[in-house]
Amino acid sequence: MNLILFPPESLRHSPDGTAYVELRDPRRLRHLHEVHRATIGERYQLGEIDGEIGEGELLAFDRDLARFAFTPRRAAPQPLDLHLLLALPRPRMLARSLENIATLGVKRLTLLHTARVEKSYWQSPELGAEKIRQHLELGLEQARDTLMPAVELVTRFKPFVEDQLPALLEGRRGLVAHPGAAAPCPRGLPLDAPLLLAIGPEGGFIDYEVERLIEAGCEGIHLGERILRVETAVVALLSRLY
Amino acid sequence: MNLILFPPESLRHSPDGTAYVELRDPRRLRHLHEVHRATIGERYQLGEIDGEIGEGELLAFDRDLARFAFTPRRAAPQPLDLHLLLALPRPRMLARSLENIATLGVKRLTLLHTARVEKSYWQSPELGAEKIRQHLELGLEQARDTLMPAVELVTRFKPFVEDQLPALLEGRRGLVAHPGAAAPCPRGLPLDAPLLLAIGPEGGFIDYEVERLIEAGCEGIHLGERILRVETAVVALLSRLY
Repeated sequence: MNLILFPPESLRHSPDGTAYVELRDPRRLRHLHEVHRATIGERYQLGEIDGEIGEGELLAFDRDLARFAFTPRRAAPQPLDLHLLLALPRPRMLARSLENIATLGVKRLTLLHTARVEKSYWQSPELGAEKIRQHLELGLEQARDTLMPAVELVTRFKPFVEDQLPALLEGRRGLVAHPGAAAPCPRGLPLDAPLLLAIGPEGGFIDYEVERLIEAGCEGIHLGERILRVETAVVALLSRLY
Repeated sequence: MNLILFPPESLRHSPDGTAYVELRDPRRLRHLHEVHRATIGERYQLGEIDGEIGEGELLAFDRDLARFAFTPRRAAPQPLDLHLLLALPRPRMLARSLENIATLGVKRLTLLHTARVEKSYWQSPELGAEKIRQHLELGLEQARDTLMPAVELVTRFKPFVEDQLPALLEGRRGLVAHPGAAAPCPRGLPLDAPLLLAIGPEGGFIDYEVERLIEAGCEGIHLGERILRVETAVVALLSRLY
């Protein structure tokens, strides 16, 4: 952890204006103990979820509580203005992709059913809100970011693409990554360029899906002749775009 | 597997000039059975290691042998002229990184010891030649590539950087990825631009190491203020460079 995230309710102020952070959740306490080998008096990078990043001096630490004096220093890094539309990956790959997506600064993710997504993936415990949140937190902590991405699950492709996607693309450039598309992936866009990027499952979108996405206003783009696994493609596309 | 790789010795020619591929290795036979549910008469993409890619029609398939009629069609995709110098990652991350490196077209990899590499990583069974080769093959099969990367292990940083690196950098641009470096990672280089790219371990190169790499002729580059895990950084850097 390059940063220790804490929820806003962990932040307390004493009458003299000093800010304190009190962590009680077992995952963070364990991590402080096992990875940081946290020691009283040491300073750590702390970040308030959806808030500021600063320095925390560890004042007290036992099995149930870690207490820091907190001095906020700076805002979170600039987010991407990108809505990622990702065909639901297999559970193990989902976990890593969520971490990478959070690390790379995506703040809006739609996990979508498509023809080549196995229906059983939707039953995975990895899709529980708490599990998703844990992976996103790990990704944010890796990147030293505090802004929590929003994730929605969409189990029906057609109504989403027909009824919701056109409105999502108003004022936003839509891209669909598809091997064999005519145009190469754009490069070096500004972080605040409004984008929507659609990435298919292992095996890709089927032709029908690509046609519907293009009809809704997306441009087909490719990364070259090499076929990448989805989790690799997510990183490669985001890194090439910005 | 988007491609089934086979070693040159699996290729046989009948007197009438027809080429056959005979696979006997258990991993490929199992994969053909379990993932492809291979059926006699079906056609598969086959590639000779370090050779051509083509179409294979499955003629016979049992527990010990798969036999294809093979028609070569095209050469492997263009490789990168990039020598990747990677601080040895932790074993689990090494496996995925080897796959990604092979998928993305790197053909020369040096795994290097640095101050923040745990010594125990060098004892991992993942560093066995056969294990490394398996991960590289999976990566090549994913990308539909046949050109096997060369991997060398270097357990001493200083003699490598002082005695070997300057010669490796003759006619080759050297880059060292380091958060906080002055220059952003270059973009959109041609695939055949001769490069050497050094990537540190989790926690980064130490200052001394960055200084030695720069002294040997490398330029420091960064990917922005977000800190990426090594396996993510490998993909992000390669995708941004080309």
